[in-house]
Order: sequence, then structure tokens, then C-alpha cells
Amino acid sequence: MKTIYLDHVATNPLHPEVLDAMLPYFKEHYGNPLSVYESGVKAREAIEDARERTASLVNAKAKEIIFTASGAEANNFALKGIAYASQSKGKHIIISKIEHHSILNTARFLEKSGFAVTYLPVDKNGIVNPADVEKAIIKETILISIIHASPEIGTIQPIAEIARIAKQKGVIFHTDAVASVGNIPVDVQSLGVDMLTFAAHQFYGPKGAAALYVKEGIRIVPLIYGGIQEGGRRAGTENVPAIVGMGKAAELTKSDLQKRIDHVKPLRDKLIENTLKIDKVILTGHPENRLPNHASFVVEYIEGEAMMLLLAAKGIYAASGSACSSKALKASPVIISIGIPAHLAQGSVVFTLGEETTDDDINYFNETFPQVIKRLREISPFAKGWEGLEDSTCTARK
Amino acid sequence: MKTIYLDHVATNPLHPEVLDAMLPYFKEHYGNPLSVYESGVKAREAIEDARERTASLVNAKAKEIIFTASGAEANNFALKGIAYASQSKGKHIIISKIEHHSILNTARFLEKSGFAVTYLPVDKNGIVNPADVEKAIIKETILISIIHASPEIGTIQPIAEIARIAKQKGVIFHTDAVASVGNIPVDVQSLGVDMLTFAAHQFYGPKGAAALYVKEGIRIVPLIYGGIQEGGRRAGTENVPAIVGMGKAAELTKSDLQKRIDHVKPLRDKLIENTLKIDKVILTGHPENRLPNHASFVVEYIEGEAMMLLLAAKGIYAASGSACSSKALKASPVIISIGIPAHLAQGSVVFTLGEETTDDDINYFNETFPQVIKRLREISPFAKGWEGLEDSTCTARK
Repeated sequence: MKTIYLDHVATNPLHPEVLDAMLPYFKEHYGNPLSVYESGVKAREAIEDARERTASLVNAKAKEIIFTASGAEANNFALKGIAYASQSKGKHIIISKIEHHSILNTARFLEKSGFAVTYLPVDKNGIVNPADVEKAIIKETILISIIHASPEIGTIQPIAEIARIAKQKGVIFHTDAVASVGNIPVDVQSLGVDMLTFAAHQFYGPKGAAALYVKEGIRIVPLIYGGIQEGGRRAGTENVPAIVGMGKAAELTKSDLQKRIDHVKPLRDKLIENTLKIDKVILTGHPENRLPNHASFVVEYIEGEAMMLLLAAKGIYAASGSACSSKALKASPVIISIGIPAHLAQGSVVFTLGEETTDDDINYFNETFPQVIKRLREISPFAKGWEGLEDSTCTARK
Repeated sequence: MKTIYLDHVATNPLHPEVLDAMLPYFKEHYGNPLSVYESGVKAREAIEDARERTASLVNAKAKEIIFTASGAEANNFALKGIAYASQSKGKHIIISKIEHHSILNTARFLEKSGFAVTYLPVDKNGIVNPADVEKAIIKETILISIIHASPEIGTIQPIAEIARIAKQKGVIFHTDAVASVGNIPVDVQSLGVDMLTFAAHQFYGPKGAAALYVKEGIRIVPLIYGGIQEGGRRAGTENVPAIVGMGKAAELTKSDLQKRIDHVKPLRDKLIENTLKIDKVILTGHPENRLPNHASFVVEYIEGEAMMLLLAAKGIYAASGSACSSKALKASPVIISIGIPAHLAQGSVVFTLGEETTDDDINYFNETFPQVIKRLREISPFAKGWEGLEDSTCTARK
């Protein structure tokens, strides 16, 4: 059976050119980049070359890029690194309610360590109101972190506007751009951000390589102490092949981005248009201001996990936007934050397209998805409504 | 020119079978391991299979293995994770003076965060006295971390004895076994440790994969917060190919370890025997109780970096044991700790053999190294002694 991969927000296949670029660093150039001999020097040069390419994708300087092993690590590093570096100035941090778990849970850890965190609400489209950011800033505020684009609902935040406010108030501003870099143009200069997280596997690069952009002059405390790698800001023997792969993927993405957008957007629009014809299906996230490859819905009366499994049986690979389906068994805070009741949040689904997605794929999807929903509603005990199911259903059903 | 790689302690070439095992996870099975569809399920199964193999190498249970991206990350995780988890019990930590920088610098960070750290001395062979550990333990002690084998001087510590003392006193015991796992048998049960760090690239596995063994029942606070990966203890999309590679490398190491030891030890002994015939060359570390592939020396009147460069010009790749040569420009605390004066510590060199090292390689080394020393002493302004050079030479020569 042909499979149709519509889960590009979860991860992506490696671009063949990226793997080709990586292979020599598994084989001949395996030296430790700190070494003085040839295989070490080659590895070090490759890292610095990759740093240039990676920086260039987001219009940063090479020295402003710190490589990490994942977006989660970069997000933890950003929050804790600024919290510890700036705590003498103040201990207040502002984030939104729809941050990725690597931001939300790090913020909760910092709360236990004596920091105060303000969690900003979003509107029904998932947008943070810049005026709310401005109101939340107090004298002790040292950091604001707002996600650039939501992997669950696709909404793109007014980051430039929020960054401008942060700058006026002298507060460091970080954005988690894991879901946006590779899907829309991201430019740290025009956004005006101080820090930005992005991950290679979101743009056909390898898992195990990500980066934190830290604007020149900003002091950050390491998350991982040890040797002098990454200018002493992130220790550990460099994962040379993965870093090289990130550099190559960044280079390809920079040159192909507009072509990729022009390819996925009409297909995505066709998918949304057809899906919204189905009864009791709601588009989540912003109708226009969203990632061009991203479609997300709440399907009433059906659980996301059941949809995922039945779609997978038909060869369509997608994700439930709800953390429920990824085994955490809690309704997604993102879906709750945009005003969807907890019992409906269970029916959250996310479809994300990629460069290999074809018009035939979307035609097949558009035929199949309504059938899947029909079938599940036929067998669902809740198809006539969710009566008797409390908001706690999800957490209780272990 | 043929090159002879004698820097296996820095990193290792990837075993060809390891790369073969990794490749399918770059290509067909690229799915996110949290996904419900086939390519995700395959990735998840591969991770759990790798976890079994990795655990087996150190005689742990699979669920006691937490994958990280580097030994440095695992060491930071161990120290901070136990510090934060156990701080209500006490805020005292014991380490040795010859720990890796990822332990030393994390300990210093914890000192700034209100923890007290005792740094234990070592004898002239680099051995920590278990009686010193016992004496250092106070009611507030929550963690002891002693390196298993030193990458700089090769000395293997009496870990089982120290672990026994820690257990008697009810203190959690961690060992950094990055330099030992893959070179000697390491068994968490017979050592009796609670936590142990090891890294794949030390035993012909990939960079970007390491592990922290955490004995069942021990509570540890995450270093990287986010999703539910690694049982909620280490977030971030898993680097599936690297983890698979670590599993394969662990399996190969388990079956080949004795053969590898039998191969490198006589060659290493031959190298040491010949090198000690050179005038004013001192073996550093324990003469017998040391890693079987490890030879380390202090060569008087010469800088390690100069030796490295001239050896590299002759095709021999090795490391200076001094952090000086890795650009930190400070005399190595390990070399200082074994009683070598700072001005002699500059002449530290480390040679580490591997499975591809041949008898011819060692013959060539044994011919070449004395010539290199002779040549450097001829041109060294300090060849007659280091008069006029203070202990601060190294730090001052920027």
C-alpha cells in the first residue's frame, strides 16, 4: 500500500543530499573537532561551515548560532540560561499558554526555583495580543518567550510586534521557531528577536541537530557545562555529521523555500476546503495567518487517536494535535486555550504537507477522510453527543 | 602518508556495521517515535531494541537507561538531576579533583546555586582514597561522583569500594564511565553504582548518542524538560539513527571486548616500555591499574602542543593531556593533582590505541617519537630547564 505522509510537523524524511553531505563525517573525517591533526581539523572546519549556512537561513551571524541536540534542549537552554544569567535583575518571565511543552515545563521548573511566570492567553484563533504582553511586563521581567508558529494549530504569532515591545522595555525576547523555520521565511533581524530556537529535522535535516540563535552581546548561562565547545556555551563532543547535515539542510531550505511554499499551500487549501464540508468539523488556528503546509481540525464526537489509527490503516499518516494521543492522556492546553471544550479537544487532528506531497495524495485524502469520520461516527457510542463525558474523561481513561 | 590514529580517547571511527545499522533510520524509518503509524512504530521499536543492547553492555535493565546526546549531557543531568531531586535532604556533593570538565564545571555551577562541594585529592598515581570519601561524607551529603577511568592519565579508580561506602552511608553514587566503557568490562551490578555515564563514540558508535544509567527507584529531575520521551526524564525528539548506532556498537563491544583488550594491551605495553627509555619522560597515571589501551606521559622541557603538531606531521595523531593544547590555556587540573608541577604539566601527552592499531604502527611510533622529542629539545629555548617560567606561563601566554 502506498503511504501518504501528512505529519511533517512531527518530523521529516532526510533529504538525500543531506545524507550524502553527512556520510564523510561518519567515515573518513571522524576526528574530534578539538584535535590538532587533519581529521579533527576537517571536522572543525565542517562545523564552522555548517554554522555559516545555518546562520544564513535565519539571517544571523555565524557566531550567534549555538548548536544543540534538539529544539527541546535549545528551549530549555534559552529559558534557564537567561533566568540564571539575569536573576540579579529580576525573576519574572512571560510566556504564552500555547507554548511547546519544552517551554511550558521548563517554566514550571523555574517557578519551583523561585521565578514567577505569567502565562498569557490567546484568542480563538490562537493569537497572543501584543497589548497583553505589554501589560504583563513589570520591572522584574527578564525574559519573554512566545512561540513563533504553533505545531498544533498552525497559527503564526505577531512576533515582530511583540519583539518591538520587549525591546522598548529592555526585556530579552526569545521565540521558539521550531515549527516555522523551514516552512516560512524567518529572519531574526526583521523579527527583531534576541533569541530563536530551530531544529534541523523540521526542514529535511537530521534528528539530533538544532540551534539556538543568541544575539551578539547577550549573556547566557550554559545548560550543559564541560569543555570549550560552542564557545564554552554548550559542552559535549560535537555531533559532527548531524551538524553538517543541519548546515546542508539549511542551505537547501534557503534556496528552495519559496518553491516549497508554492507547492504545499494550494494543496493544503484544497484539503481544508474539502474537509470543512464535513458536518461538525472545525478548523483550529488562524484561517489565514497560519503555516502554509498546516491544516488542523477538531472533529466532533470522535477521538483523535481513533482517527489516526484508521487513517494509518488507509495509508495516511497524520498526528493528533492532542497530547492525549501521544500517551500523556491530558487534553492539549493549546486546544483548550483557543476555547474548545475539553471533551471536544479529544477530536483534534493535524495534517502537515511536505515537498513530496502530490495532488493525487490530496485527492485520495479528500476521498478517504470523510469515509473515516463516517465510519467512526457509526461505531462511536458518543456519536449523538458527548453526554455523560466530563472534562476529565481524557485524564481518567487510563 | 599513512596515518596512525592514537587518539581513541578523543573519539573513534564508526564501526562499518554500526553505520549499516543506522542507515535505514535516516531513510525509510524516519518517523517520529511518538507516532502511531508504521514508520513511527518502527523507530520506537528500534529505540527500545537499542536500549536493551545498551543496557546489556553494562549489565543494567533496559528501563534503567536514559539516552542523552553526549557524555557531557549525561554528567550534567546526573549532578543537577540528583541535586534538585534531593536538595530537601541536603546540599552537599563530593567529587574528585580529577573529574572531567562536565562534572567539575557542573559542580561549580551548583556551588553558585547554594550547594557545597568537596573536591577529593588523588595520590601520585591518580587514585582516590576510599577512606577520604568516607571521611568527607556528612549528614547533608546527597551525591558522590567519582570518575571511573581518567581519559588523561588512564588510572582506574576503586569504584566498587567507593560505591560500597556510599551505599553504607545511604548516599547516591554516580560514576563517569565515558573513558572506561568499551575499554574494560563495566558492570553496574558488580560495581554497585547507582548511576553511570557512558558514550557511544568511545566504543565505535556514533557521536550524538550517550546514556545515563539510573538505578531503578532513584528519582532524578530532568535536565531537558518537554515531551514524554525517555519516560519523561529527557525530552526532545529522539535521535533515532544515533540511538540505533549506540545499540549496535554496544552489542559489538560486548562480544568483542576481550579480543579488543588482548589486541591493544601488548601493543600499548610495548609503546610504554620504549618511550620510558627516553631521557626525562615520566609515565603519568597508575603503572598497572590503567586502561589497557592508554599510555600517558609528561615529557620534560617540551610543550604538548608542539609534540602533537610534529607527530601529526609524521602521520601520528595523538592528544595532549593538557587542556592547554585544547585552547583553554590552563594547566590541566588532573596533571597538577598527581603532583606534577605546572610548568612540567605543559609536556603532557596521551596515546590511546584501538582495534585497528597494528604492531607496525607501534614500531613506527617507537622510532618516531624519540626523534620528535630530540628535535624539539634541540630547538627549545627551555631544553636546559624551565628557568624563568612561572606556573602562570600557560595561562599568560595568550
